[in-house]
Amino acid sequence: MSGKNLYETVADHIVALIKGGTLRVGERVPSVRHLSQQQQVSISTVLQAYRVLENRGWIEARPQSGYYVLRTKQTRAPEPEVSQPPLDITPVAVKELIRQFYHAAQQPGIIQMGAAIGTPTNFPSRQLARATSGVARQFRDEGNSYDLPPGNFALRTQIAKRAMESGCQLTPNDIIISTGCTEALNLCLRAVAQPGDVILIESPTYLTTLQIIESLGLRTLEIPTHPRQGIDLSTLEYVLERETIAACLLMPGVHNPLGCSMPVTHIRQLVHLLAERDIPLIEDDVWGDTYFGESRPPTAKSFDKSDSVLLCSSFSKTIAPGYRIGWVAPGRYFPDVEYLKFVSSLANPSLPSLAIAEFLENGGYDHHLRRLRRHNREKVQSMTELLERYFPEGTRITRPIGGEVVWAELPGNINTTQLFSRALREGICIGPGSIFSAKGKYTNCLRLYCGHHETETTQQAILKLAQLIEKMGI
Amino acid sequence: MSGKNLYETVADHIVALIKGGTLRVGERVPSVRHLSQQQQVSISTVLQAYRVLENRGWIEARPQSGYYVLRTKQTRAPEPEVSQPPLDITPVAVKELIRQFYHAAQQPGIIQMGAAIGTPTNFPSRQLARATSGVARQFRDEGNSYDLPPGNFALRTQIAKRAMESGCQLTPNDIIISTGCTEALNLCLRAVAQPGDVILIESPTYLTTLQIIESLGLRTLEIPTHPRQGIDLSTLEYVLERETIAACLLMPGVHNPLGCSMPVTHIRQLVHLLAERDIPLIEDDVWGDTYFGESRPPTAKSFDKSDSVLLCSSFSKTIAPGYRIGWVAPGRYFPDVEYLKFVSSLANPSLPSLAIAEFLENGGYDHHLRRLRRHNREKVQSMTELLERYFPEGTRITRPIGGEVVWAELPGNINTTQLFSRALREGICIGPGSIFSAKGKYTNCLRLYCGHHETETTQQAILKLAQLIEKMGI
Repeated sequence: MSGKNLYETVADHIVALIKGGTLRVGERVPSVRHLSQQQQVSISTVLQAYRVLENRGWIEARPQSGYYVLRTKQTRAPEPEVSQPPLDITPVAVKELIRQFYHAAQQPGIIQMGAAIGTPTNFPSRQLARATSGVARQFRDEGNSYDLPPGNFALRTQIAKRAMESGCQLTPNDIIISTGCTEALNLCLRAVAQPGDVILIESPTYLTTLQIIESLGLRTLEIPTHPRQGIDLSTLEYVLERETIAACLLMPGVHNPLGCSMPVTHIRQLVHLLAERDIPLIEDDVWGDTYFGESRPPTAKSFDKSDSVLLCSSFSKTIAPGYRIGWVAPGRYFPDVEYLKFVSSLANPSLPSLAIAEFLENGGYDHHLRRLRRHNREKVQSMTELLERYFPEGTRITRPIGGEVVWAELPGNINTTQLFSRALREGICIGPGSIFSAKGKYTNCLRLYCGHHETETTQQAILKLAQLIEKMGI
Repeated sequence: MSGKNLYETVADHIVALIKGGTLRVGERVPSVRHLSQQQQVSISTVLQAYRVLENRGWIEARPQSGYYVLRTKQTRAPEPEVSQPPLDITPVAVKELIRQFYHAAQQPGIIQMGAAIGTPTNFPSRQLARATSGVARQFRDEGNSYDLPPGNFALRTQIAKRAMESGCQLTPNDIIISTGCTEALNLCLRAVAQPGDVILIESPTYLTTLQIIESLGLRTLEIPTHPRQGIDLSTLEYVLERETIAACLLMPGVHNPLGCSMPVTHIRQLVHLLAERDIPLIEDDVWGDTYFGESRPPTAKSFDKSDSVLLCSSFSKTIAPGYRIGWVAPGRYFPDVEYLKFVSSLANPSLPSLAIAEFLENGGYDHHLRRLRRHNREKVQSMTELLERYFPEGTRITRPIGGEVVWAELPGNINTTQLFSRALREGICIGPGSIFSAKGKYTNCLRLYCGHHETETTQQAILKLAQLIEKMGI
């Protein structure tokens, strides 16, 4: 492989011998001098290769004796454990790093594994362009009139139909169109909370959620979150008993960055716990349609008997990041959200709504989704394998059930904020763990967006990251 | 005229006799009985006609004698005087009435003289639809990618070019694209003020400005405003010396609802007064391009040496309400406004920006503007004449130099909030004066949007309004 270092080739050679059974557990691997002569590489290259293999857990050094095989097959990296954020209320203070992060993610020529910004070629952009041309001609005057909240009726009808997939019974009149899910989250937070109020969130959580909370002068309380099951309900209950909480903002469907989904029984219990205490749940379901399995996880909204779940989503992760069509079904907060939508942007642009409505009705959304999910699953799988292969032994990696990102926890004291800066100098953008926590926790974690590049480019980037990590002290 | 009442025809007949010189000032008009016979109408119809003529100041009743001519030609109604709002700080409390107002303005079949919502047929909707089709094909992938703040470069370039017209020297890098001027105003207020802070505004002012201020938890201080010259600078200075002010939000170019423009010397002085005290000026120039004269009024931004004017505008009043393309040149608040834009809606829809950029470059924006201004001027002129003809003597009417609205102050104790409700029952929507003041002042004023209907429909509506006013006690 073109961009691969020589010592990696040597290391791969040894791994092949181990996997093939030529070298067994406990056996001594060839001496440094011997391998140097045999492979026609320098002593220092072999030494580096052996150090890498040691870091990755394939071999161990025995003093005065040499290197010995520790394991014989690629084992799966362990998963992260339940997060343990301190249970205190805190303002958000990660604005500056997030700013640097988004700035970095947009640099031309960067290997973009930071922001989860989809690639236009993965989306039905041609069909959408055609739909846009069509509606521009067909709705000449309507297309240039104010589409006041709640927004285009045809689009709301299509969204209500699709919401049946997640178990919701919505009518077009339950839905308000927004500028992406970002605006929807803003509107919901403003509808249910005042500056200074406390919002319960998962830990880690979506970075823009933190920015929104900060910009609105709200505070957060982070709840321990399991990498497969989502928010820890007993801690949630403990906190609800003790603190005054304005709202919860959670991702029960497909979590970002953990890629997990709450078990159905947990979702039901969550809705019940909050309804009992009359606390609204803002449900960010923007990744919900990107599950890998046969059927999508149910939304909390589908169990919402008290009409206090505000379900937010968009089409940005599935078909149309450039169209900025989001939506919210805010339950009994409908009048407030609708009013805030009106006051903050008056109306939506008309043609994008008309075009998305047309595509949803006639464009083969489900067909496209199946293709996209397959693509995402392969990307996530491939990224996971690269991390298991190249990242140091002891790295913990999530097992996403949807989405396009992988969350990894590094062993030792590697600071991923430093790694972010160093990787950037090498032309690679990653998501440093601390931007996923109001407290700047997770400095030993990183999020990797899997969707953007060809496998070869990704492999080179992961290799480079592994080298940087090694240099930093693992 | 089909929809005209019989007594109006009789009244018009008398007015024609007066204007033509047949009846002179001080002369007695035909007796009720005589006119009834002559015109083949009932006594009560003539009586009603005479009461209307009396209300409008054409004739006066002399006890035991009959009706006598008071004036012989159509005189211009006087202008409103400088407003005199109490100079105290106040939260905004007009949300509910504004809500009713916008709801009313959208009712199907309503004669819409309330909301200043342009008519698609007055805009180059066909050319814009064509531009949209073109860019959808040409920029298939870019059109479906995030257009992150500050937004599309080609569009910002066109806006910077056009800003030269108002005396501004802007580069594309000074400009941030927003979802209409509404979002721009939101972003600017959030960038310069915290909840509880005081914003200086004109009195009356644009109703949505009041809603935005209220929704952000800000307070206002209304400054007396001259119907031709805008905000009163000596009062402004007086207030600036005594109160802690976070920002001013003003419309120096073309004011809504007064339709006035500040004299250039005043604008210069305004900018100076605020810069001296380091107070930012948010300049709402959304109507600036709709001036009736030969060249447009300069913006305050064009005199802004300290980079503390945040100039906001959009294309919603000139070409494209349905495209939601606004912009802001926030001076030294650029990083804050850009960040808030990102956090509140992440990105703009891509295709509308591309389409407007294309139209600005090649679509004949100036040609269209000339046509639109002529159209608006005629509509405003025609509305003014109708008000002078039908509204009660003593009605004061603004002399707009741009825009599409007329502001009228009724004599006596007519409550325009009541008039709004009564007119609505007759299928007419007007803008009740109190929604243009944080304090709910101007309950004897109303704003009329002139752009929507054919002259005949407008005439019928004005006549009906005049009748309602008469019934209410003038």
